Amino acid sequence: MNDPRRVAVIGATGYVGFELARLLLRHAQIEKPTFYLRDGTSTVRCLTELFPQLRGVGDAPCRAFSVEAVAASGAGVVFLAAPHEASLELVPPLLDAGLRVVDLSGAFRFREPETFAAWYKLPAPTRTLLEQAVYGLPELYAGALPAARLVANPGCYATSVILGLRPLVDAGWIVRERGIVCDCKSGASGAGKEPKRELHFVEVDENFRAYNLFSHRHTPEITDHIGVAPDDLIFSTHLLPVARGILASLYVWLDRPHTADQIEALYREFYAGRPMVRIWSAGRLPELQHVVHTNFCDIGFALDQGGERLVVVSCLDNLGKGAAGQAVQNLNGMLGFEEAEALL
Amino acid sequence: MNDPRRVAVIGATGYVGFELARLLLRHAQIEKPTFYLRDGTSTVRCLTELFPQLRGVGDAPCRAFSVEAVAASGAGVVFLAAPHEASLELVPPLLDAGLRVVDLSGAFRFREPETFAAWYKLPAPTRTLLEQAVYGLPELYAGALPAARLVANPGCYATSVILGLRPLVDAGWIVRERGIVCDCKSGASGAGKEPKRELHFVEVDENFRAYNLFSHRHTPEITDHIGVAPDDLIFSTHLLPVARGILASLYVWLDRPHTADQIEALYREFYAGRPMVRIWSAGRLPELQHVVHTNFCDIGFALDQGGERLVVVSCLDNLGKGAAGQAVQNLNGMLGFEEAEALL
Amino acid sequence: MNDPRRVAVIGATGYVGFELARLLLRHAQIEKPTFYLRDGTSTVRCLTELFPQLRGVGDAPCRAFSVEAVAASGAGVVFLAAPHEASLELVPPLLDAGLRVVDLSGAFRFREPETFAAWYKLPAPTRTLLEQAVYGLPELYAGALPAARLVANPGCYATSVILGLRPLVDAGWIVRERGIVCDCKSGASGAGKEPKRELHFVEVDENFRAYNLFSHRHTPEITDHIGVAPDDLIFSTHLLPVARGILASLYVWLDRPHTADQIEALYREFYAGRPMVRIWSAGRLPELQHVVHTNFCDIGFALDQGGERLVVVSCLDNLGKGAAGQAVQNLNGMLGFEEAEALL
Amino acid sequence: MNDPRRVAVIGATGYVGFELARLLLRHAQIEKPTFYLRDGTSTVRCLTELFPQLRGVGDAPCRAFSVEAVAASGAGVVFLAAPHEASLELVPPLLDAGLRVVDLSGAFRFREPETFAAWYKLPAPTRTLLEQAVYGLPELYAGALPAARLVANPGCYATSVILGLRPLVDAGWIVRERGIVCDCKSGASGAGKEPKRELHFVEVDENFRAYNLFSHRHTPEITDHIGVAPDDLIFSTHLLPVARGILASLYVWLDRPHTADQIEALYREFYAGRPMVRIWSAGRLPELQHVVHTNFCDIGFALDQGGERLVVVSCLDNLGKGAAGQAVQNLNGMLGFEEAEALL
Repeated sequence: MNDPRRVAVIGATGYVGFELARLLLRHAQIEKPTFYLRDGTSTVRCLTELFPQLRGVGDAPCRAFSVEAVAASGAGVVFLAAPHEASLELVPPLLDAGLRVVDLSGAFRFREPETFAAWYKLPAPTRTLLEQAVYGLPELYAGALPAARLVANPGCYATSVILGLRPLVDAGWIVRERGIVCDCKSGASGAGKEPKRELHFVEVDENFRAYNLFSHRHTPEITDHIGVAPDDLIFSTHLLPVARGILASLYVWLDRPHTADQIEALYREFYAGRPMVRIWSAGRLPELQHVVHTNFCDIGFALDQGGERLVVVSCLDNLGKGAAGQAVQNLNGMLGFEEAEALL
Repeated sequence: MNDPRRVAVIGATGYVGFELARLLLRHAQIEKPTFYLRDGTSTVRCLTELFPQLRGVGDAPCRAFSVEAVAASGAGVVFLAAPHEASLELVPPLLDAGLRVVDLSGAFRFREPETFAAWYKLPAPTRTLLEQAVYGLPELYAGALPAARLVANPGCYATSVILGLRPLVDAGWIVRERGIVCDCKSGASGAGKEPKRELHFVEVDENFRAYNLFSHRHTPEITDHIGVAPDDLIFSTHLLPVARGILASLYVWLDRPHTADQIEALYREFYAGRPMVRIWSAGRLPELQHVVHTNFCDIGFALDQGGERLVVVSCLDNLGKGAAGQAVQNLNGMLGFEEAEALL
Repeated sequence: MNDPRRVAVIGATGYVGFELARLLLRHAQIEKPTFYLRDGTSTVRCLTELFPQLRGVGDAPCRAFSVEAVAASGAGVVFLAAPHEASLELVPPLLDAGLRVVDLSGAFRFREPETFAAWYKLPAPTRTLLEQAVYGLPELYAGALPAARLVANPGCYATSVILGLRPLVDAGWIVRERGIVCDCKSGASGAGKEPKRELHFVEVDENFRAYNLFSHRHTPEITDHIGVAPDDLIFSTHLLPVARGILASLYVWLDRPHTADQIEALYREFYAGRPMVRIWSAGRLPELQHVVHTNFCDIGFALDQGGERLVVVSCLDNLGKGAAGQAVQNLNGMLGFEEAEALL
Repeated sequence: MNDPRRVAVIGATGYVGFELARLLLRHAQIEKPTFYLRDGTSTVRCLTELFPQLRGVGDAPCRAFSVEAVAASGAGVVFLAAPHEASLELVPPLLDAGLRVVDLSGAFRFREPETFAAWYKLPAPTRTLLEQAVYGLPELYAGALPAARLVANPGCYATSVILGLRPLVDAGWIVRERGIVCDCKSGASGAGKEPKRELHFVEVDENFRAYNLFSHRHTPEITDHIGVAPDDLIFSTHLLPVARGILASLYVWLDRPHTADQIEALYREFYAGRPMVRIWSAGRLPELQHVVHTNFCDIGFALDQGGERLVVVSCLDNLGKGAAGQAVQNLNGMLGFEEAEALL
């Protein structure tokens, strides 16, 4: 029988994988996880061989991955930290084997197969699978987690933008026809561990640049969960010369004059009882340094004197709330643990 | 008699001052400048005492400042690199003494005294003086430089935004009612050399934050020279963990579908013959590293498939084209030298 | 009566203070600490007012400091995170009030009053007090902690150098007459939170410099605990453009050829059972990234082919093992808790 | 006939190549250089295609490389910016074709073939060729440059160490038997433009590490030109989280007490008339920021009170005085131009 407190992690070799390992090792409600490496030739036998920084902190076994091996392990929940191509292939057999899956890739984040196909240029998962998948943003969809068999862990940028705008959207205060601009900036760990020319130290240091304009794959996650027409939103991404962190500057025109107190109250109410979102009062804005190495999403704002132009600033750690931390938060929701367990 | 090739610099003790000194020392068309220090107690006698990095490069005399001393020196043009409070006080007597002035502060950048008073919370210069001042953006107002007695060197952010948007504005292609968003990011040297908590290394390193939202003093420069109603534009500023450079991401909705070729042609035509603006073809965006330690403003863009959503990226070195370099470019215009003299 | 599990912190307003607060809030064996602010005019009432980054993590009361208030609180152990001038004044009355003190300043780190007087240019504490003080390097002096009334928390540089060299010294393998060179590099948080010209972002970013050569106050801590004549050692300090971390490159000539295995065995044996020191095998050296945000001191080495020239690399987080983390490790030793409690 | 003022550059595609291109484009005494690319499949036709940052600054033709093409071009001097394997192969035919060569690799930096073979694990150039090569450190060997047919441009680290120690060595003030420690730190551009795991932004940012201890190939350059037995010197290299710059901390024990004035006078006299070395007076040390983006080597020092322990700090830009700038300085010496032409 699968034991819900037994957890497996597949493919934890990059920056997100390290963070996930670190968090799961200190999670008090689960057994020590087992790590499965997708590189069949690996001779790595334990986590500290892979990540020597963990020596003295904790260790766990590493094994060669196969669906059968994971299924036989008795694990209840599996984290899949692999490219979306691998997720497309592995998620169905893992589900068939009775495992619950938290997938950190972009493969199962959309409701419509067409959306996936258009943005990822690959055959989409079946509609049945996509309908089964829960978009793993606990602040919005926590209710669906206890019964979820497949959780699609959201994109890092998408998390920052959706959490930053959703209260305004739900309140109906945004004039969508004027357009919404989401100018996002991320640290370099969001681009992965694989050496590339554009991520070479000398190319990023003392530099700053926009990239993937009008083509970033987190775009449809945002429009889906904000509920805005693609033509009424511009989402842009920039590379910061820092290791970690995303800061989203979100620009909207409001339907009528509002006060800063009203804005703040709206956000506080919307996120009441959600331990991983922190609202900042008017007059002080959140910064990257407040959230890196945490699982918080911090949200603040500035309103013009007329009360109709609003800038919302949302920030988080792309490896924390933007990836591994959120995955653990989803685990907590799936298994009924405290939402912030292992995350403070 | 004042000699146009004799130049004085007042107050060159900060980062802009150093850059200005460096550029003027290599300017082939002027005499060695004299530097005047506003701190009356200074015992500094030459530039390399102030900036030891210049040893072996060049040197120039430093003297105690007084309007009389500068007037008596026979200088034709004076650069004033001082806080706006000092500029308000010093510009009138310098002009009265027959000197031509390039003022690097914000004191004389506006046409309306009310604008200055509202944003700087100080009594404004007289309307006569403001009407006399040329806004020193040579790409737009070069024609006024030869006769100018007072040049107001533009703000660094304003330069990046105005150069980035003006071709579209003049072409009438922007739907202003949908709003224009100008999301700007700057390196820390833009905030000056004075030690402050928020500019302490540990507070900026690996950090990123927005600041002065809806209150940055470059705002009215932008709306003045773009010709857009304040309520239809949001201008924001952020602090990058780099020493130098500004990158502006400019978001507009176009009046009808345009092609990338049309956009590129518009910009190339607008800046034809202007050596300090470089236009990037669609498909490649400028980056901070392309412009730091130069006097260039690089402009590129990304257009959505529909041809109606446009992101313009404009970048420059805040100490170069954003301050000292532009001041020298203005000098070149005032004295009839090659526009790029000392700037390549 | 004083309760050993009740803890007070005096002066926790800087970077070390924040780290100390963070660690104590997650310490499972003590009560929630009370923080005392030395600025009598402060209106801060709780820790999250002081450090808003802690919102959602934990909070604790802040009170105005007086020896009487701390004494009356029933606290058993007091952390004093203040300049050494303040420590000189406050430690005697705190001890007199029956409190046990962990002092993070340099005031009580020397056995000889003359050493303090010579390096700090101030009247020294009494010899009695200095003899009472335990130099709080648990890897060397853990045995003295349970009975200690006053613990002098070591300097950050000194910790890295002493831990890096002591096994060789005790083994008698170093040829002291050839000289020992300790070339140390630290991140900027080690210099404190007070804004200063030389710690301004633009002055540290993309820069690197040596400072305080032959005058750094950690020097006598090193010679005292290494037992080498001052003239046979050169200790140097450099400022790295990073927020956190110290890396010490330690150069020695050995008495006779040794093998890498012998060196490694020496270190492993010396630090056997000490959870906060990690030894790296020959062929791989520790790096700053392995230790920042941890309480580990990582030690590795490189030996030349002849086996007589040795470079030991020792690194740690200056705010962790170099300050706040070590203070908590000392607390654990004083109160008989697990040595690594709250530190993993 | 070869025209000495006609220059060719082979292989200028990396960071050193860019810097070399930039310097040669502004050199007033030579014709516009021609660039030869070693990648035979390249379709690049001009320098601004290779380095778009040069647009508006200058341009020059790029051609496919062959020895014949370069020989036929009439160039007098060729810069070879290629891996040492390529230099080993290309230098003999280039010399045979009557060209003078400045080789930026390590292939011809040693007097003894055995030294090259031992450190580079490759068959060495012939003794005849090595004897013909001038070690291109103009401060020491300028006299040999006018007649040189082959100049071996020194290693970046070697330049900083040799310039820093040579005055003391020649004066005979160092007690060599006590050992010399050369602790060097470099920015990441010194490691080249090729993406690698250990040069990935996230791996370098906020990190610091030693590397290549006892195996760095600049070691024998240093011992050769300092004239010290290999066992009496330890040379170490570290990677700084900056793009450019080398700082060497050099530790020596002196033969008898000296004063700071004596040390300073020794250095000033040794480098009198050499425009690219700047000596700092006691009490102020040079920093990376003073030399990056310049061709200067700055040297300062700190002496202990006893006058027998000395730390010399030597710093330079690894792409400037450490590579491309020094190559141009060698060109100037070969052709009889001002030593600092194009370098200020």
